[in-house]
Amino acid sequence: MPAYTSENYRRPAKALRLLLTILHNMPMTTAPPPLRPERLWDTLEASAAIGATADGGLRRLALGDADGAMRDLFVRWCEQAGCTVTVDRVGNLFARRAGAEPELAAVAIGSHLDTQVAGGRFDGVLGVLAGLELVRALDDHGVVTRRPIDVISWTNEEGARFRPPMMGSAVFAGALGVEQALATADDDGRTVGEELRRLGYDGTAPVGDRPLDAYLELHIEQGPVLDDDGVDVGIVTGGAAMRAFEIEVEGATAHAGATPMERRSDALAGAARTIVALGEIAAAHGAEAKTAATRLSVWPGLAGIVPGSARVGADLRHATAAGLDAMVAELERACAAAAAATRTAVTARAAYGFGGLAFDAELAGSLRRAADALGLPARQMLSYAGHDAYHLATVCPTAMIFCPCRNGVTHHPDEDVDRRRALAAVAVLQRAVLERAGVLR
Amino acid sequence: MPAYTSENYRRPAKALRLLLTILHNMPMTTAPPPLRPERLWDTLEASAAIGATADGGLRRLALGDADGAMRDLFVRWCEQAGCTVTVDRVGNLFARRAGAEPELAAVAIGSHLDTQVAGGRFDGVLGVLAGLELVRALDDHGVVTRRPIDVISWTNEEGARFRPPMMGSAVFAGALGVEQALATADDDGRTVGEELRRLGYDGTAPVGDRPLDAYLELHIEQGPVLDDDGVDVGIVTGGAAMRAFEIEVEGATAHAGATPMERRSDALAGAARTIVALGEIAAAHGAEAKTAATRLSVWPGLAGIVPGSARVGADLRHATAAGLDAMVAELERACAAAAAATRTAVTARAAYGFGGLAFDAELAGSLRRAADALGLPARQMLSYAGHDAYHLATVCPTAMIFCPCRNGVTHHPDEDVDRRRALAAVAVLQRAVLERAGVLR
Repeated sequence: MPAYTSENYRRPAKALRLLLTILHNMPMTTAPPPLRPERLWDTLEASAAIGATADGGLRRLALGDADGAMRDLFVRWCEQAGCTVTVDRVGNLFARRAGAEPELAAVAIGSHLDTQVAGGRFDGVLGVLAGLELVRALDDHGVVTRRPIDVISWTNEEGARFRPPMMGSAVFAGALGVEQALATADDDGRTVGEELRRLGYDGTAPVGDRPLDAYLELHIEQGPVLDDDGVDVGIVTGGAAMRAFEIEVEGATAHAGATPMERRSDALAGAARTIVALGEIAAAHGAEAKTAATRLSVWPGLAGIVPGSARVGADLRHATAAGLDAMVAELERACAAAAAATRTAVTARAAYGFGGLAFDAELAGSLRRAADALGLPARQMLSYAGHDAYHLATVCPTAMIFCPCRNGVTHHPDEDVDRRRALAAVAVLQRAVLERAGVLR
Repeated sequence: MPAYTSENYRRPAKALRLLLTILHNMPMTTAPPPLRPERLWDTLEASAAIGATADGGLRRLALGDADGAMRDLFVRWCEQAGCTVTVDRVGNLFARRAGAEPELAAVAIGSHLDTQVAGGRFDGVLGVLAGLELVRALDDHGVVTRRPIDVISWTNEEGARFRPPMMGSAVFAGALGVEQALATADDDGRTVGEELRRLGYDGTAPVGDRPLDAYLELHIEQGPVLDDDGVDVGIVTGGAAMRAFEIEVEGATAHAGATPMERRSDALAGAARTIVALGEIAAAHGAEAKTAATRLSVWPGLAGIVPGSARVGADLRHATAAGLDAMVAELERACAAAAAATRTAVTARAAYGFGGLAFDAELAGSLRRAADALGLPARQMLSYAGHDAYHLATVCPTAMIFCPCRNGVTHHPDEDVDRRRALAAVAVLQRAVLERAGVLR
C-alpha cells in the first residue's frame, strides 16, 4: 500500500477510492500517533495568560481585546501546524488539516475560546486546543487521513457579553441569521459586527457553507458527577432539554412602613415566592430535573419602599422534553400562585431554549470503544449545559466527550482539571476522530 | 390690656411677665387668624415645579440642584414673611417669627423639602409649607405670640441620596455627629459637606444649639388607613419600632445546568426563602407588624450560573419594642433555616432603626382638642414610617398630625391629598401651635 501524503493524494483513481472506502470501514488496527502532554499543557498555559485575572482565572469575553489576542495566537499555531484557516462572516475559525480526499466533508473538532466574566482556563479552551494537539500529533508522525480534519473555534459560545450564547454555532446551523448576529449589541451598544471588524475577524466565508462529516466536542463536565464518582470519561449521549424564562413581576410601590401588609402589591415578595417554587419544582422531578434563578433585578430598590416591579431570569432543565413541559406547566401554576399571594401580576415568558436532543449513536459507540481500548472508566450521560454541539447536531452526526473537572467547579477562576484525565479524554477524542476520518498512513 | 407688638415688647416688666404666664395657661378663647387656602396651595404648586418630573411627581434629592432652588425659594418666602432665617452647619433651615418674649424657647413646626427619587409633591413639603402659611396668617392679622415660632426644614429626611435618612434632625438631636454627616458620600462620591458648600447652605450655626419648647410636624399619612376610613385627621401618638437589616447570603457559583441540585449553594435561593419568611413573620404578628424586603442584589447575576452571593435590604416594624424583638428573633431563625435548606451562610445584620417611642401626651391632647373644636373626625394612631419628629422627641415635647393621602399612595408621582383635608390638618396644627406659643394679640 502506497504511503499517501497530502501532496500526492490530490487526484485518486476511482478504484483507489473504493479501496479506501473499504479500509475506512475496517476497525482501526494501528495505534494512533502518541500525544505530547507537555505540548498540550503549554498551549493551555499560553491561553491562560491571555485575559488572565489576578485570581488565576480568565476574563476573555467574546470579541474583547483578549479574545482577539487569543484568536491571533490560535491562528498562528494552526498555520504553523500546516492548517489552512478560514474565517466566516461571524468570526467562526476553521483550521483545516488537509485529508487525502479533499473533496470529502471534514471530521470536525470544536469548542470555544471565549470565557465567562470570571471564568476558568478550561471551559471551551480544552476542547479547541485538544483539536490542535491532535493535529500536531498527526503531523509528528506524518499521518495522512482520508477526510480533512477541521479544528473549529466558535464565536461567542458563552453569551456573557452578547446574547444569545452559542451564537457562532447557531448561525452556522441556520438557527440564527447572520445579520441578526452581526447587529447584536453588548450592554455598551457595541455590536458583534463592529467588534469583529475592529479585531480583524470579519471574515468573508459564508456561514454554514462548509459540509461536515461529523462533529466531536470535548468539554469539561462543568458538574461534579464524574469527579465524585472517579470516572475518567463521560460519553455524552445527548443534551437535556432546557428552557430559559424571564419572569416579570408587576406590583406597586408603597411605603414600607405605613402601608398595611394586606394592601401591598410587593413585586419582590412575588419574585421570591416564584424562586422558592422553582426549587420545589426541581425537587419534585428528581435527579433528571434542574432549575435555577440566576438573575434578579428589582425596582426601585430603595430602603423604605415596597418594590414595584421585579424581573427574574430562570431556567428549567429536564432529561426529556416531556419532563420539561411538565415542569414548565408547574412554573406557570407557581407564578399564578405567587401573583395571588402577593396581589401582583407574574408572567413567565420563554426567552430561549436548547437541548432536548440525542447525539449520534454511532459516534457515541466509537467514543465508547475508544475508552474501552484505552482501559478508561467511562459513563454515558446527558449534558445539562449548553454547548455548540447542540447546534451542530442539527447539521451532522455529533457527539461529545466530558472530561471531569475538579469538584465540578466551573465558570469560576478555580476551574481545574486533572492532567491525566484531560489527556485521557484527548486520547479518546483522537481515536474517534481517526476512526471517522480514516487513517491511510 | 395694651396691644403688644413685636416692636414694643422687647423689655417687659417682671409683673407683666407674670400676667402673660397666666394668660398663656388659659385656654385660647379667641379664634385663630383665618388661613388662606389659595395662598397655601400656590406655595405647594410653586414647590411642585422645582424638580418636577414629566409624570407630575417630584425628584428633588437632598442637596441636588432642585433642592438648592427650593431652599432659595423657601428662604425668600420666609424672609418676605418677616422671619429671620438661620442655617446650621448641616444645612437645616430655621425660619423664626419673633415672639413677644424672644428669650423663650420657640414652638417649632417642621418637616422636609427633599423627596424620594420618584416622589410626590406633598411628602414633607406639606408640613414645611403649612408652617409658612401659619406664620403668614399670623402676619395677616398682626397676631403676636408669646413664644417665637420656628418653621424648620430638615436636611435630607428621605435618605434617597445620602444615608442615613432623617440626617439633619439626627444631627440636631445628637444622634449623629456633625462631621460624620458632612463626610457622608452619595453613590457618586460627593459628600454632604461639598454639596452644602456648592449650594451655599453650609451654614455656620452650631447644630442643635437652639432650645425648642415643642415640636409639631404635619405629614401625609403615607398609608391608606385614614383615607379608607374617611377620617380627616390622624393624631400620631408615637412611632412604631423599626429595625432595618442587611441580610447577606454567601453561597458558591456553579453551573446552573451541570451541577446537581443537592450540590448547590444557591445564594439567590437562600435570599428568596428569607424574603418569603419575612412575609410570614408579619402575618404571624397581626396588624401591628409589618415587614418588607426592599432591595436585593445578586452576584454574578449571569444566565447559566448559580448565584454565589446575594444581599437583601429588609426592615421589620412593630407597634411595640417587645413585638419587634420577637420578630427579629424569628428572622434569625428564618435565616438559619434558609441557610440549611440552601447550603449557604445567611447573616442578618441590624443596620439602623428608629421609632419605638411615644410622643408627648399633652401635645397630643392639644391636637385632639383642636380637631374637636373644628368638628373634624380624628383618630389616634402610630406611625410606621420614619420621621424627623422621632429625633425631635428626644429633644423636646413632640407630636405629629397625619393628613390622609389619596389611596395611601406615597413616594410616587401620583401622591395626592384632598385639599379640604389638608387645610383641616393645617388648621389643627395652627390651634395647637398657638395654644403652645400663647397668643397676645
